[in-house]
Amino acid sequence: MSASDHSPAAVLNGSEAFPHRHLTGIAGLQPHEITFLLDEAEKWAESNRARRPSDHRLDGITQINAFFENSTRTLLSFEIAGKRLGADVVNMAVAQSSVKKGETLIDTAVTLNAMRADVIVIRHSSSGAVQLIASKVDCPVLNAGDGWHEHPTQALLDALTIRRRRGTVHGQRVVICGDLMHSRVARSNILALTALSAEVRVVAPSTLMPGAIEAMGVTAFHNFDEALEGADVVMMLRLQNERMSGAFIPSTREYHLRYGLTHERLERAKPDALVMHPGPMNRGVEIASGVADDPERSAINEQVEMGVAVRMACLDVLTRKSRGVEGWA
Amino acid sequence: MSASDHSPAAVLNGSEAFPHRHLTGIAGLQPHEITFLLDEAEKWAESNRARRPSDHRLDGITQINAFFENSTRTLLSFEIAGKRLGADVVNMAVAQSSVKKGETLIDTAVTLNAMRADVIVIRHSSSGAVQLIASKVDCPVLNAGDGWHEHPTQALLDALTIRRRRGTVHGQRVVICGDLMHSRVARSNILALTALSAEVRVVAPSTLMPGAIEAMGVTAFHNFDEALEGADVVMMLRLQNERMSGAFIPSTREYHLRYGLTHERLERAKPDALVMHPGPMNRGVEIASGVADDPERSAINEQVEMGVAVRMACLDVLTRKSRGVEGWA
Amino acid sequence: MSASDHSPAAVLNGSEAFPHRHLTGIAGLQPHEITFLLDEAEKWAESNRARRPSDHRLDGITQINAFFENSTRTLLSFEIAGKRLGADVVNMAVAQSSVKKGETLIDTAVTLNAMRADVIVIRHSSSGAVQLIASKVDCPVLNAGDGWHEHPTQALLDALTIRRRRGTVHGQRVVICGDLMHSRVARSNILALTALSAEVRVVAPSTLMPGAIEAMGVTAFHNFDEALEGADVVMMLRLQNERMSGAFIPSTREYHLRYGLTHERLERAKPDALVMHPGPMNRGVEIASGVADDPERSAINEQVEMGVAVRMACLDVLTRKSRGVEGWA
Repeated sequence: MSASDHSPAAVLNGSEAFPHRHLTGIAGLQPHEITFLLDEAEKWAESNRARRPSDHRLDGITQINAFFENSTRTLLSFEIAGKRLGADVVNMAVAQSSVKKGETLIDTAVTLNAMRADVIVIRHSSSGAVQLIASKVDCPVLNAGDGWHEHPTQALLDALTIRRRRGTVHGQRVVICGDLMHSRVARSNILALTALSAEVRVVAPSTLMPGAIEAMGVTAFHNFDEALEGADVVMMLRLQNERMSGAFIPSTREYHLRYGLTHERLERAKPDALVMHPGPMNRGVEIASGVADDPERSAINEQVEMGVAVRMACLDVLTRKSRGVEGWA
Repeated sequence: MSASDHSPAAVLNGSEAFPHRHLTGIAGLQPHEITFLLDEAEKWAESNRARRPSDHRLDGITQINAFFENSTRTLLSFEIAGKRLGADVVNMAVAQSSVKKGETLIDTAVTLNAMRADVIVIRHSSSGAVQLIASKVDCPVLNAGDGWHEHPTQALLDALTIRRRRGTVHGQRVVICGDLMHSRVARSNILALTALSAEVRVVAPSTLMPGAIEAMGVTAFHNFDEALEGADVVMMLRLQNERMSGAFIPSTREYHLRYGLTHERLERAKPDALVMHPGPMNRGVEIASGVADDPERSAINEQVEMGVAVRMACLDVLTRKSRGVEGWA
Repeated sequence: MSASDHSPAAVLNGSEAFPHRHLTGIAGLQPHEITFLLDEAEKWAESNRARRPSDHRLDGITQINAFFENSTRTLLSFEIAGKRLGADVVNMAVAQSSVKKGETLIDTAVTLNAMRADVIVIRHSSSGAVQLIASKVDCPVLNAGDGWHEHPTQALLDALTIRRRRGTVHGQRVVICGDLMHSRVARSNILALTALSAEVRVVAPSTLMPGAIEAMGVTAFHNFDEALEGADVVMMLRLQNERMSGAFIPSTREYHLRYGLTHERLERAKPDALVMHPGPMNRGVEIASGVADDPERSAINEQVEMGVAVRMACLDVLTRKSRGVEGWA
């Protein structure tokens, strides 16, 4: 672990280590705050692996998962995280939602607040929806993905996975390949990885590459092979179904040929380079099955595992103030 | 608080204070029984505000929320209420239900009963469905809204909100405006408010006003402005989408002009009159946004808050017998 | 109870009584292993009837119910069973599932595994899907029904119901009538009942009778009246909606005339013969309402009740190893 991976949390007392009320994005977090969350998550990762008896620190806490956009994995992960900490977890699925009755988003938020939620986890298809809700409620809000904006817990779990598998994030050459234009995963990852001093390269077809992306401190490539030279980590993005035809790419086969990760292509990266994917995967499109299933290279399952640990850390940290934890209240 | 708001529960021992097995409606409840539930709910309201540690009195109790009709708010409210008391809460959503396989309602009820539910919360689109189920099971049944019949916990939370904000329900002039014809909320509220000696006025277009409504002890108006004179409380009903066009009202704009609550119109009520709405609101239809969001007048958020408290009280009281609480078993 | 109903578990220590990691089917279970599960379930049945305080032995255990096929009853039953034992129960409903995003079944399984599920309950429309998942995860897998293959907990609850109501399964003449061809319920029941030395007769129209079914140790009939002679138990199968017209049966009315269970027809069975149905019932099709509701004959509600008990037993037994229970770890 390099010096920059050490958390200064040891010298910061209580809430000074993480002075934010919400987690709406990685933007606005200091590197040491990101590291603090990773350190906290690391403890839960160990505890989960040891299958330690349930922790009841969130006993009596009402956690509402308000998912206005479907997501099995992220919802499951937040639900398991909350329950493992003893919270009363309640899911509000969009399919049953009053939103269908024409209620405004703010009215929904104010309603959840009036029910005395202690923490609200939100996923929404509109960028900024989470920030809007955060401004209307009395409790911490956790962004579980909003539009093309941010998906901070994904970036945290990815950083934690890299740190565990590569020893550090600092100085790692991370190649992020895929639909950069519409990816909140990429956006949050770029923010987290550059904050932690990784060298980030992004690759995409020109139709899926934002114009000003290099202003985020990354190097943009259109040729995947070039970008892969000397890579420590290759992070593939999911190609959304709605982008699979027509305006954005010629065909999934063409996409796979130019931007799919194969073992052959992976040889351009470092011999021990790590392969990552946020899931769910389109096998044979952005990633070849052989690469995804290669136990030496693929960290995909560890990403899922770290997801639960990161969410446990975030739920714990964000509710410390209301739970009156010493140094946080 | 006037004399009639005082609960005689202090002198009634145990189950004498609330001798009913089910809560299928407000009809059939004595005023002192309603007041008893409000008093119990008041305690939970305080406990929720203080964010007291979880109460585990319903530990081991299986609460099944059988919602044959979609409802985010009411389901969330009952789920949070049960979990906050430590119950094992299980939701049976209509979308997954065997009802789709052609099972009869009674068979579903008998099945839930055979699984040893300790309390069943039911929402159903047919009036009387809840009473039918209550007659077939061995455990308490709580009506979460059935057809155009009753929605008793809504009436209780409304009465509690009025009592908290106005000091008493007794003698308050409450104006209920909207689709009286198809509203179980209005029906339960009329029963509860008249039982507690409020003066209830109802207002609706003639197409949405039941013929014999004055037999319920209310005064019927077609002119909203007249009804509002001297009002202490203005309770607006949600205009259901399916009533928004065609046979019932000329247009939502026309409806808003004649029956929408605006600040201008509210001036006819008392200067400190309370504004209520069961939610979700159609802003700009039955209620203007400015009125809904006026912190001095609107009690809409407090209604939601009291909803959880009232449901905690009902779940607690109805399960006392099976839990062997002294004086109730 | 006959000798063969006695469990040798008393002389088998710990995991020797049930050495299997998963419960993917009845096939492969020894008679004494089936009896062991029934004995364990019997305890839970008593405990549920006594409404004993919650048991917390699965505290800290994450139980994921991954239902790729809709089912209210079975899902509710597993959810109640897990919660009653203190598990953190998380449902993954197909409607919200990543499966819709094109994820492979194995990827879904591996994801659930990476989240550190302690036990996974699976229902899937494909035969063998459960076995496939079991081969990919580190935790016990419980089959809640897969295709036309098996539904082992249904067979266990049926056997337990018979044992309770008839004193023994051994030597009982059990008639299973209905769509044998597509029924995992029938298949698992035949395996369990023959293992426990019942005499099993099966009845179906020729279009719904598998060719080689007698190889399973049963006697096949096409005439229901003949099959019923001297029956101790009559187990009716649900006629699935998709089989109700066209290729399989002429009409539901015709089906009822030839294969529907009526009181008149039931007279051919023993005077105290038991009537069973896995639910949900098509009243007037495979079973007449009068028979289904006859408290002297129908064991249908007890089947539902035993379902929860059997699932509690399976969840308890399968997680003993990971929970470090003495003799099982």
